[in-house]
Amino acid sequence: MQSTPTKPPFYLGIDLGGTKILAGVFDSQLKLIGTYKVSTKASRGPSGVLGRILRCIEDAIDECDLKMNQISAIGIGAPGSVNSGKGVVNFAPNLGWRGIPLAGNLSKKLNAPVFLGNDCSVSMLGVYHVELKSKPANALGLFIGTGIGGGLVIGGEPYRGFTGCAGEIGHMVIDRSGPLCGCGNRGCFEALASRNALFNSIRKAVEQGKKTQLHEILGRDLKDMRSGDLRKAIRRGDRLVNRLVREAAEAIGLAVSNLANVLGPEVVILGGGVIEALEHEMLPTIIRTARKHAMPGALTGVEIKASVLGDHAGITGAAYLARAELQAHRSKAHNTLHSSGNA
Amino acid sequence: MQSTPTKPPFYLGIDLGGTKILAGVFDSQLKLIGTYKVSTKASRGPSGVLGRILRCIEDAIDECDLKMNQISAIGIGAPGSVNSGKGVVNFAPNLGWRGIPLAGNLSKKLNAPVFLGNDCSVSMLGVYHVELKSKPANALGLFIGTGIGGGLVIGGEPYRGFTGCAGEIGHMVIDRSGPLCGCGNRGCFEALASRNALFNSIRKAVEQGKKTQLHEILGRDLKDMRSGDLRKAIRRGDRLVNRLVREAAEAIGLAVSNLANVLGPEVVILGGGVIEALEHEMLPTIIRTARKHAMPGALTGVEIKASVLGDHAGITGAAYLARAELQAHRSKAHNTLHSSGNA
Repeated sequence: MQSTPTKPPFYLGIDLGGTKILAGVFDSQLKLIGTYKVSTKASRGPSGVLGRILRCIEDAIDECDLKMNQISAIGIGAPGSVNSGKGVVNFAPNLGWRGIPLAGNLSKKLNAPVFLGNDCSVSMLGVYHVELKSKPANALGLFIGTGIGGGLVIGGEPYRGFTGCAGEIGHMVIDRSGPLCGCGNRGCFEALASRNALFNSIRKAVEQGKKTQLHEILGRDLKDMRSGDLRKAIRRGDRLVNRLVREAAEAIGLAVSNLANVLGPEVVILGGGVIEALEHEMLPTIIRTARKHAMPGALTGVEIKASVLGDHAGITGAAYLARAELQAHRSKAHNTLHSSGNA
Repeated sequence: MQSTPTKPPFYLGIDLGGTKILAGVFDSQLKLIGTYKVSTKASRGPSGVLGRILRCIEDAIDECDLKMNQISAIGIGAPGSVNSGKGVVNFAPNLGWRGIPLAGNLSKKLNAPVFLGNDCSVSMLGVYHVELKSKPANALGLFIGTGIGGGLVIGGEPYRGFTGCAGEIGHMVIDRSGPLCGCGNRGCFEALASRNALFNSIRKAVEQGKKTQLHEILGRDLKDMRSGDLRKAIRRGDRLVNRLVREAAEAIGLAVSNLANVLGPEVVILGGGVIEALEHEMLPTIIRTARKHAMPGALTGVEIKASVLGDHAGITGAAYLARAELQAHRSKAHNTLHSSGNA
């Protein structure tokens, strides 16, 4: 099978996560040419992580037989609260970062324009522009990974609110006497259904003597557990993992119901690593729970589905961001030039 | 003191609640001229309530020394899910209504244009256009009365989402193992902090033998309890009522935090009968709890305050709706006429 030829200019999309950095090289039509992945190693601090992002970028470009000077712009989605205009990560608890001028630092090293966004907003940008052909006016994305974040589209545009950090659905409290969350609250959605929450509840149950097939897959200490291991365990008939995954799916369904009541979206998209690994196991429970709890009418005619882009939503959205922002900057520069010419 | 003269045309705003119907007569500048209030008596069914709305309207107009033919248009806010375009109340559990063509029925009886909206959306319309001078792009209204509803402004416009019923904040679950809600869920915001929830928790505590000053105010059986009685009891040093009102305020604060995380509003407005009666007792706890639970940045620079319009938000918004919709209809009719003239 011959693939369609790739067209310059090229764009780089980076998904910076607490666990891994994923880089994708895209052509002018946002067709994915190649990816490269490295672990984040957040414990090495901002400059250590910056070095790893640079290495990931170089290796991704090299994998695609390209050179850095063929890349027109770079987009990057980072977790936590970001200032897109200034390219600064304000606060990223998963990375332990505060006030890191990520876009500026990368831009200097790479001698190319770099644009920054919140990881979940950027993922939603990818889903919306590349995956959702119907272009709904209002859409909601829930991204379930190490943590949980949301992406909102309102009136066909990405929505970040007055504060620039709207969509923080992971810290919506749904069980105020529930387990403690990293943010200090009890019973946040993230503390009930993120990968970390799921792994913690499995480890706790095992400590209390519950049986699981995970030992046969991972060994005695369940180190390096991944979402895919849970799927394998369930398929081997693991009742503990099956129950805990179902409980997480119920929490996700309840969150979808809450958000549908408040926001009235036309489409609800579920993405992130946990959904990619466990879509088959979780999605029916999520949909059933959401429809059971939502107000009459709040989910009538509303599609709830898993993202087809899956783990590539972040890099796709980041490449989209890079292309859109570059065009906006060029058109602004052109207009400024044009109007000074006329003055 | 001489009041400024009122200017025709006049508009009527109706706030249809589960307990009472409030009608307000407004002049062309939306200055309130007079109000009239009757109880709803929802148990008499839709035609019984329709008769009471008509009586309330007639009495309000008469109080203002006006005649029905001096009223240009009527706006009405009804609880539950409404179809504004068709003027139909789809589903109003507090009234026991399904598919009632309220605007059409009223319009026929009164021989005047009638425009319908959801009660909380309409209240937010009043607050936004008459009270919020800064015209924030994004604002959130929480209306705490018999039930709890929300009103959203996004991009300077009322927001009702794809389903037309966005803003159903009362059925956001914040305590999934909490008390049963009328909607069938457990731990909805409304089941924790509405007037009904507050009164139920007081009655339950009294049944369990707890002491309260309310008996001295209301007699043995606590019938006809009103929000204002709780304020009186607290001022007499009633520790039970003080604690239960504080707990309701904490639930409201948690809901504000959830909604600020998700929506990133610039202004948060609290309204409804419970807030009007207990602002002094509840607002400090609401603000403290919201700021404690919200994500870093989600409430930075965000104003949280009680509506100055208070219980008049609904009638003011309804009159605004009447005036705006009448102008829109007239301009549309004019344009249609104009374009047919040109054809």
